[in-house]
Amino acid sequence: MTYTVLDQAALPGYLEGLPRVMEVLGDGQDYDITEIGDGNLNFVYRVARTGDRMRSVILKQAVPYLRVAGEDWPLSRDRMIYELRASRLYSDLAPGLVPEIYHADEDMSVVVMEDLRDLRVLRYPMIEGVVFPNIGKDIGRFLGKALFKLSYLGMDSMARRDLMAQFVKNEELCKLTEDFIFTFPFVEHESNYVNPETNAHATKVFRGDPEYLKRVLYFKEQFLAKPDALLHGDLHTGALMAGPDATFVIDPEFALFGPFGFEVGKIMANFLFCYTAHYHRPGGPDYQDWLLGEVTTIWTTFNTEFLRLWGEQDESALLYPGFLEPADLEDYKADFMHRIFQDAIGFGACSLARRTVGIAGNADVRGIEDMAVRTRLEMMNIDLSYLLMMKYDSLDNIDALVAVIKDFHAARKDKVLEGLT
Amino acid sequence: MTYTVLDQAALPGYLEGLPRVMEVLGDGQDYDITEIGDGNLNFVYRVARTGDRMRSVILKQAVPYLRVAGEDWPLSRDRMIYELRASRLYSDLAPGLVPEIYHADEDMSVVVMEDLRDLRVLRYPMIEGVVFPNIGKDIGRFLGKALFKLSYLGMDSMARRDLMAQFVKNEELCKLTEDFIFTFPFVEHESNYVNPETNAHATKVFRGDPEYLKRVLYFKEQFLAKPDALLHGDLHTGALMAGPDATFVIDPEFALFGPFGFEVGKIMANFLFCYTAHYHRPGGPDYQDWLLGEVTTIWTTFNTEFLRLWGEQDESALLYPGFLEPADLEDYKADFMHRIFQDAIGFGACSLARRTVGIAGNADVRGIEDMAVRTRLEMMNIDLSYLLMMKYDSLDNIDALVAVIKDFHAARKDKVLEGLT
Repeated sequence: MTYTVLDQAALPGYLEGLPRVMEVLGDGQDYDITEIGDGNLNFVYRVARTGDRMRSVILKQAVPYLRVAGEDWPLSRDRMIYELRASRLYSDLAPGLVPEIYHADEDMSVVVMEDLRDLRVLRYPMIEGVVFPNIGKDIGRFLGKALFKLSYLGMDSMARRDLMAQFVKNEELCKLTEDFIFTFPFVEHESNYVNPETNAHATKVFRGDPEYLKRVLYFKEQFLAKPDALLHGDLHTGALMAGPDATFVIDPEFALFGPFGFEVGKIMANFLFCYTAHYHRPGGPDYQDWLLGEVTTIWTTFNTEFLRLWGEQDESALLYPGFLEPADLEDYKADFMHRIFQDAIGFGACSLARRTVGIAGNADVRGIEDMAVRTRLEMMNIDLSYLLMMKYDSLDNIDALVAVIKDFHAARKDKVLEGLT
Repeated sequence: MTYTVLDQAALPGYLEGLPRVMEVLGDGQDYDITEIGDGNLNFVYRVARTGDRMRSVILKQAVPYLRVAGEDWPLSRDRMIYELRASRLYSDLAPGLVPEIYHADEDMSVVVMEDLRDLRVLRYPMIEGVVFPNIGKDIGRFLGKALFKLSYLGMDSMARRDLMAQFVKNEELCKLTEDFIFTFPFVEHESNYVNPETNAHATKVFRGDPEYLKRVLYFKEQFLAKPDALLHGDLHTGALMAGPDATFVIDPEFALFGPFGFEVGKIMANFLFCYTAHYHRPGGPDYQDWLLGEVTTIWTTFNTEFLRLWGEQDESALLYPGFLEPADLEDYKADFMHRIFQDAIGFGACSLARRTVGIAGNADVRGIEDMAVRTRLEMMNIDLSYLLMMKYDSLDNIDALVAVIKDFHAARKDKVLEGLT
């Protein structure tokens, strides 16, 4: 159908044409429609059956301009195409870990999906120190399923290239990642965060260190030219909705074919980032221990799930039955996972740096109002990024990574805590 | 225009509608039309102005069936789309090293191009022992220009992803490469070459060696998921036309985004393959020395040209001005070229193996009628493939590679020559 912007008056008519949506909403006379988006980019509505809040859906529509700035600021609706395509794939392969997609309409830039009512964007309860018992496992399972099934290991050659063709033009958002994760934070750039002390520390620690910068450039190479699998592309704690016993991955608008390690490393780094924040945030050492435990769980669950699926697959774009004897294939797999692991650390180091000095900070630390405290924690994350980038290729397993992180914090804890409490 | 098969009667009318073609053919009354293709896949015609053979063009058209088998054997014309697109790009960026494209018509699956009259497909004069003084330089220059300019080093982010979108669906030919270069030769497969002694040697030497096979699988991974640049994709000595002072790269129907090392290694391996053939072919030791010298020249010229272009480029998808200090950037470049070099050796080892035991042999050796001789040389190429695959990651420069190849041949020469002459 031809694109039109759906206003609230038009929503009931649109939804009533969609049988699956009407199944969810059920029979009744009227709807309660609430706009719930942040209003920057898209329209996001909650549509519930009047008198039954448990019968509701979320409708999201992209508009061809920057909504917050108005119709005079044009912005392509293309991003919604990739979000729709990735959402549909995830809905099929990781049900229960992503919202169910009831309807997706590329022409209208509309998706209608499961209402994750009563769940919260993970970042904010994590800042408060809320423990989610299954979070690491759920993230690890999502990573294992999505990254295996949508890679050259889980797809045949033709299907894989067909899928690549569906995402290769998500180029505006890829360019954002190339610039804002892999470039601008590492040079003096007008887009960077303006805390002068933090910036000076970044310049001292890594902007002046050729070895660190060459490693960043190597990871940028990989981001540009290592399409291992379809990635969510922006999997941080703001792209997860969580409750006591549910975790959902949302908002895959950055979806692209990229390196396994980027996806795994980014979310692990978000937990490390939160660790630093809890020198000041209320969780304290217990919560920090929990966070580090979840980093381990993310990796081990991902590793297990990925290898479990590999065990069920003997033919794909890469695999050919009997190419290696079983014992040799196990060696190959071990080496394969080891490469993902080390890459994840390197990508995680990029992530820590860019969330500290780049335009898009994490609220965990950047939301701290006391500038003296914030600066101290930012400097710590810069140091941690440096440490991990310089060590990524010598860390052989998750225990070694955790040990390095523990040592790092043990050596600094007292100094950081001085005057913080 | 709607697709129709152009028969000889229809050619003049088609060509007369194309101003650039008519410039080349000039004024006159009539045309001499000769079919010159091998007749397997496409129609290929030479069209010359009657009475002036120097005014001629080549017209190539793909038909939607396997021509040699007839209209009942359907075959997609898509391959011509990618050949056209790559030919146009090469024509712009490496004039004089590829035929000039006068006209390209994707709907009609037609390309009209420069007639490389009086040149020969390089493979055959090389089998005869003909020296081409500029061949290594020309190949190296082509590689340098094409691989740099069509990579994330030479293109900006958006243009690069747009170009990737134009080639990502060349999936049938990519699948052929995945199967026939990286898979079937390394297992027992019905498509393989049937010389039982050669096959038995391959099984003994590499099919039973897990380390070798794991390395092959690693290079298959790279072929699948390392889109460094747009590659010709099938750059062997049969895809080059050469004369005493001209070299042209032809037939880029396999064009794909793939790893630098694949393109560089494949053509280098073709020269090594020819080296082995000249234990029997008439060139003898002098020609073998020349071939090995040209392998060096291909690499050094590629390296120089690639770095020359890099020196002129400070901004692209990967590069950002000032990201590294000049001396550090030089280090990064050296490491970058080193990685391409080692990958080229590994890919070259795959190539040597598949041209020996896979379905598509090189005439250099497979065309030898004396089976005893042929078998002995095939076994030698299998051993050379093994050697290079096991050593690729310990060879640091072209001199080291040449030394290893010289040692290999020196140790076997006498045994091979026994009874060959």
